[in-house]
Amino acid sequence: MPRARRPEPQTAGTDPRLIIRLDLGGVRIGPGKVSLLEEIGRSGSISAAGRALKMSYRRAWELVEDLNRGLGTPVVETAAGGAGGGGARLTPAGEAVISHYRTIEAESNHLASQRLAQLARLMAA
Amino acid sequence: MPRARRPEPQTAGTDPRLIIRLDLGGVRIGPGKVSLLEEIGRSGSISAAGRALKMSYRRAWELVEDLNRGLGTPVVETAAGGAGGGGARLTPAGEAVISHYRTIEAESNHLASQRLAQLARLMAA
Repeated sequence: MPRARRPEPQTAGTDPRLIIRLDLGGVRIGPGKVSLLEEIGRSGSISAAGRALKMSYRRAWELVEDLNRGLGTPVVETAAGGAGGGGARLTPAGEAVISHYRTIEAESNHLASQRLAQLARLMAA
Repeated sequence: MPRARRPEPQTAGTDPRLIIRLDLGGVRIGPGKVSLLEEIGRSGSISAAGRALKMSYRRAWELVEDLNRGLGTPVVETAAGGAGGGGARLTPAGEAVISHYRTIEAESNHLASQRLAQLARLMAA
């Protein structure tokens, strides 16, 4: 399955942090896919979400299909439409993926912050 | 910088879990690099560690160099040697990376276990 490769900026000099992926029975959900879902929720459009994340429409669509198929429950619903496509919206399952992911990300970072700071100090020493 | 791509088995049907990466000022340390460090610690050899992880010697060496250079503190020390290479061992910083990573991984998974189970149930519904 293709993986979300959001352009992640080089973060030299930033605070140490965790990057989290959820593995739900073989389907991996990391920061790229979660950002895509968030943009779809904001814009109501897979193509607009792809553009916002500098991702091709095809790539954005593939990621959505992978999630919908892989998870067994759709996270994005699309409506048939004309030239511009018919719009897309998050399902309750899609909203739940975002909400749980962001909470787990924040809580894990909080939990790990002292260890990360210790490691960063050790490396700078 | 090349990223560790350990052969990660398809895990369809397994329990939901988190996959963790540490971002230490731009240097990413995930399960592939941590496994490589652990194997180097076990075997005392970069090439043996690479073989154990089905990774070329060149690839294993590149990952070690990336870590040593990127972190600013060596995590693996090598000794000059003959045809087979002179052996390698973890530095205290290398041991600390493994130990903190594994602890953060276990603690984060513990913290997230209820949310992961909720998500998995939602997807199976």
